[in-house]
Order: sequence, then structure tokens, then C-alpha cells
Amino acid sequence: MSGFVSLVGAGPGDPDLLTVRALDRLRNADLVLYDALVEQQVLELAPRARRFYVGKRAGRHSIDQAGIHRLMIHAAQRGARVVRLKCGDPFVLGRGGEEALALDAAGIAYEVVPGLSAALAAPALAGIPVTHRGLASGFAVISGHAESAYAPVIDSLAPGSLTLVVLMGLRTRGELAARLVTRGWPLHTAAAIVLGASHEGAARWLGTLDTLAAATIDSELAGVIVIGPVVDLATVITSEVGATDAETIAAVRSK
Amino acid sequence: MSGFVSLVGAGPGDPDLLTVRALDRLRNADLVLYDALVEQQVLELAPRARRFYVGKRAGRHSIDQAGIHRLMIHAAQRGARVVRLKCGDPFVLGRGGEEALALDAAGIAYEVVPGLSAALAAPALAGIPVTHRGLASGFAVISGHAESAYAPVIDSLAPGSLTLVVLMGLRTRGELAARLVTRGWPLHTAAAIVLGASHEGAARWLGTLDTLAAATIDSELAGVIVIGPVVDLATVITSEVGATDAETIAAVRSK
Repeated sequence: MSGFVSLVGAGPGDPDLLTVRALDRLRNADLVLYDALVEQQVLELAPRARRFYVGKRAGRHSIDQAGIHRLMIHAAQRGARVVRLKCGDPFVLGRGGEEALALDAAGIAYEVVPGLSAALAAPALAGIPVTHRGLASGFAVISGHAESAYAPVIDSLAPGSLTLVVLMGLRTRGELAARLVTRGWPLHTAAAIVLGASHEGAARWLGTLDTLAAATIDSELAGVIVIGPVVDLATVITSEVGATDAETIAAVRSK
Repeated sequence: MSGFVSLVGAGPGDPDLLTVRALDRLRNADLVLYDALVEQQVLELAPRARRFYVGKRAGRHSIDQAGIHRLMIHAAQRGARVVRLKCGDPFVLGRGGEEALALDAAGIAYEVVPGLSAALAAPALAGIPVTHRGLASGFAVISGHAESAYAPVIDSLAPGSLTLVVLMGLRTRGELAARLVTRGWPLHTAAAIVLGASHEGAARWLGTLDTLAAATIDSELAGVIVIGPVVDLATVITSEVGATDAETIAAVRSK
């Protein structure tokens, strides 16, 4: 009896935005190891499975990365069908590659089931096309978590040459904006924060690089920052999250 | 009686990689307007719908962009539930933004249903994580279609600061590689071509910037180019598409 691990992208939140393949893997899972921000409704799609929280909260892991690897490997060795359920896509800033390498090293059969990354889905659901003829013919997705990660990109990228999507950048958004302005991005470059992607309570803030640092954001939800002229389209294109700046800020404040 | 338009991402090919929401919209559609490279099996998920091909082949549109807008608008005005089915994600180099603006201008109610972009799904299915701790903390997605689109990005980006994903770049891959090398990217930087994402006959080629131009590719399938040290992980991480360079090239040659 040999088990199997599926590294599954849970998408941006709403169970409706799971792939059909992800749904199938959840339905047949014996064990689900899930991250923070995975919705309860998504977990309920795995009725047969034991469900085990392995995420981190407030920067502290409930279990470390090596522990997650051990859990997956041991369960698969005992014959379990394991779903390692990760927010968004397993390979976008999610350590999915490390988990794949650990499974390979242990000789465990596994697969990768891609999911909708919030890097793309959050802007789309908020009415922002990351590319648009005449405005942006490409985009970059970076982590705002640490200066060492975003600085080399921001310092080299020609201002406005791409739409910039920043994950894990809520805390550092002031520094990010200042750095972009120093590198020649105009102060009035449009910027958005999409909070909670397709989770309940999702909301968006619209502004500019000039006002990004001061945006009133007080949320437990993850935020995606989008910077570039495509953000201006959000005032016209239909949005599932929030409506106007004022409403959004009010909604976020009232949390 | 008022109609409704859903701008739906069909994902990278396999019906299994549609979202649950996309599946629902197809099942309830009266009319499906679909692009090139949408699989027949995906279209069969819309049994009630008239299905109308609006893609382009060999660079020539069967119908122009304004014609697509008119078809959507007229059908919705007659009360139809229209699915505008686009490869990958509607907002990644897919003119989805233009279609949204046209619907808005005509006063038609519509929504955007994000899909898995081949820009992320093709590498993932080929065993390439676009981000990986120590190798890449971000990625850029650009169009290789025209020099005017890719040159500003390539000319400014610090070598190796991001994983580079190029859509529509099969034809220009020699120029792209040469330009990157001129800008300081090492000749031995790993590069991959993933052909056909999750379509039947999908295959991958693994090489370097040095060998990218000469890669033997003869395929009707769309190709995604991935450049950066993360590509080296493809020799270890499980892949659904192809196995080794030699096999892949042979498979592509035998088409």
C-alpha cells in the first residue's frame, strides 16, 4: 500500500475558485494539511479527511517547515492520500518547491495541482487587468516581505515598464512606494490594495503611490498591492470587491 | 429580459483545470464565444449553448475585436447568458480588459471569472516553481510578441533578479535570449520551453539561454518560455509534461 501527496493550490479563497482537479483531490483525501487563510468551506469539501492546521499566525509557525515535510512523508508512507492545501498557487511564494523536493528525496509519489494565485485573481476580482493594451504588456509579482527580495527588482525596473504586483507587502508599502518614487516612478502612479481577494469581507483601496503609505488598512485579511496605470481601469471595470475608495476605507475601518 | 456576459478564463487546456465557477457558467450558457486553443472537451461542458469560434489562426482573426464586442453585446441585449471563453486568464495578455470596457460602455451586466494562466500553470505542470527560496523571490510575465513590448523590461531588469516567463515568444526566442545575454544574463542561465501546457501532446524542452534559439520546436501548440535558475529544479520536481530533453525533442520532432 503506497500513499500519494497532492500539493494543491486552494486559490484565492472562495471554494468556487478551486479547480475541478483540486475539488477531486479534496473529496478523496485521507489527510488535509492546510495553511492559514484557507476557508472553512473549502475544508468541508474533504469530508473523509482528517484536517490538520500547519499554517502560521502573526509570524509564528504552529509547526515548522521540516515538520510539515515529516507529516506529509509519514502519512504517505502509511498509505494515506494526502492533500497539502496551500493558499493560491503552490509555486507562487508558497514554498511548494521545497515541499516537492522533500517528497522527492523521501521517494514519495506526488503531484502538483496549480491553483489561482491571489497575485492575479485578487486584481481581476477587483476590476484590475494586470495587462492592458497601451498600458501594460506584462507584469511582475514580487514579495514585499523583505527588502532583500524586492529591492533588486525595484531598483532595476524601468518606471512603468510593467504592472507591479506585491504580495506580503502591506507592512512595507510605505518603503516600497518611496523606493519606486526615488527610482523615477511618478507620485501619481495609480496604486491599489486588494484585501482578502475572494474571502468574505474582501475590499479594495484605490489611490496613488503618493497616498499608498497612508492608506488606512486594518485587516486580518491578506493584501495584494497593484501598482501601475492599469489600476485606473478599476473605476470602470466591474468589481466583486468594494465599490469606491470612501466605502472601502469605511468598511475596513469598521472591522 | 436582460442578458449577462461572463468573461471566463478557460485555464491552460485540461477541463480538469477549469474553476468550479467557470464550469457553472458553461453549464448555464446560451452562447459560448471561444478562442483558439480551447479544447473540444471544454466546449462540451456547455451542452445547452450555441458555440461560436472567434479566435485567430496563423495570425489572422476569424473575426476582429470589434466584431467580438458586437456579438457579446447583441446576444446579451437579446437576453442571452453569454460566456466569452478565453484561454488561460482573461486579464493576462488576453484583451479581457478591452472586452470589459466595451461591455461597460454598452451598459451590459458582466463579470470576470479568473482562470489559471498558462504563464503559471505551464511551468508548474512541467515541474518548475516560478519562485523558490534562494533562487527567485518573484517573477515577471511578459509578451515576446513584439520587441516594443519586451525590450523595455529586458533592458532594465537586473540579470537574474526575477524568473522571466515569456508568453508568445517562441518565434522571437533567439532575439530574446541574445538581448538577455547582452544585458548581462549568463549564457548558462537555465531556460525551458513548455509546449501545450495541459493540452494533449504537451512537452517540455530544457536547456540554457545559449541553446534556446536552436531548440528544435515544431508545434501547433502554444509555448511558454521560462528563464532563470528555478528551471534547474525541473530535473527533480515531478512533471506531467515530457521527461527528458532528448525525449521531449524527439516527441516534438515526431509530430
